[in-house]
Amino acid sequence: MITVKARELLADADYVLHDALISPDTLALCGPDVRLERVGKRGGQEGALQDDITARLIELARAGHFVVRLKGGDPFVFGRGGEELAQLALAGIDVIAVPGVSAAFAAPESVGVPVTMRGIASSVAITTAQGGGSPARLEALARAADTLVVLMAREGLGEVTAALARAVGATRPAVLVSKATLPDQRSVSGPLSDIAWLADREGIPAPATLIVGDVVAYAGPTGVIAMRQGR
Amino acid sequence: MITVKARELLADADYVLHDALISPDTLALCGPDVRLERVGKRGGQEGALQDDITARLIELARAGHFVVRLKGGDPFVFGRGGEELAQLALAGIDVIAVPGVSAAFAAPESVGVPVTMRGIASSVAITTAQGGGSPARLEALARAADTLVVLMAREGLGEVTAALARAVGATRPAVLVSKATLPDQRSVSGPLSDIAWLADREGIPAPATLIVGDVVAYAGPTGVIAMRQGR
Repeated sequence: MITVKARELLADADYVLHDALISPDTLALCGPDVRLERVGKRGGQEGALQDDITARLIELARAGHFVVRLKGGDPFVFGRGGEELAQLALAGIDVIAVPGVSAAFAAPESVGVPVTMRGIASSVAITTAQGGGSPARLEALARAADTLVVLMAREGLGEVTAALARAVGATRPAVLVSKATLPDQRSVSGPLSDIAWLADREGIPAPATLIVGDVVAYAGPTGVIAMRQGR
Repeated sequence: MITVKARELLADADYVLHDALISPDTLALCGPDVRLERVGKRGGQEGALQDDITARLIELARAGHFVVRLKGGDPFVFGRGGEELAQLALAGIDVIAVPGVSAAFAAPESVGVPVTMRGIASSVAITTAQGGGSPARLEALARAADTLVVLMAREGLGEVTAALARAVGATRPAVLVSKATLPDQRSVSGPLSDIAWLADREGIPAPATLIVGDVVAYAGPTGVIAMRQGR
């Protein structure tokens, strides 16, 4: 699902600084002389690591190298690309930014769920379980938007689904997709109130995306989910 | 910005049914023997045309052709891909769906605006000026989400910005991007209350995307916008 433009840049790069979750198939698109540096953030100390990544990008660019910073999904949709871009700009580094297919849309689509649908959903909101602020903020978002997508939803899933159930009702259709579009993609679906225990029972791992709204039920009975398994 | 997967499918297609706004460069990715059919919807009668498109897809697929239905952006984010997919499934046609980079994210990024930003915006909502329902729905969405993206915002822009100003204040930073990522891309930015007259004064044409939120002001002073003009 990488873009043609991104593939061209990978082929030309001297250095590629990539996140931990980038697949080997994607890294294989780099040229033969590329130097790969994995800079993925996992767990704590994100701030310090983020500064290290930016410092390394600036160091390599100033040394005259053509550097690609490769992120999964879209770098400006909960990808902290905005921060890196601003710091590089302040350092006087020339940057081009190439959008990608965001997990916010790829995850629902991987289980056949269109995030909008005429007559069913004319708005979609996206947030994360961690960065979304208070449960009250999450509830307001769920009430205002027809479809809600919660990224990085596996940790604290019980609290998130409980808050959402208060906002839009325990029976609102929901689906949790783990490792969307990867070979080991898995999902559980059902009413909002059942998603957390279903995920525990099935041992659904992080990272996972939660999608809540009538579009989820729509995708089911029409066979859209079954049809698209072959993708 | 097309994906590698989409390009492969275009190269193999017998027929490509494409929307009106697809660029000649993209259509040039098709194989030499492809038959192109433009099925773009403009103005009224969308329902009837939509049925015609689906009927044609089914006719060609049943005749044994490999058919690509090519849409700009992402087909399942206000692209009516969900409808086409469901009807094809009901007709027993095998379909694979390939996500694309949505205008909902590509448009803000084309003017250097990250839709999320740590400490500034941890949620984003997307809707359209036409399909978003009542002004009250739009206002609730603007209040609940840190960043709001309104697709197809040129028509009725005055009403939309007035409703949003009631919800989040007339001084909330906003930018309107016309024909995002295309060679003739143009934009105007300023406080929400100024966007409609700025767009009229500058003659900004449809289709255009409106982005509202503090991330817009963030992108400006740091030079992110200027830096990314070279993309």
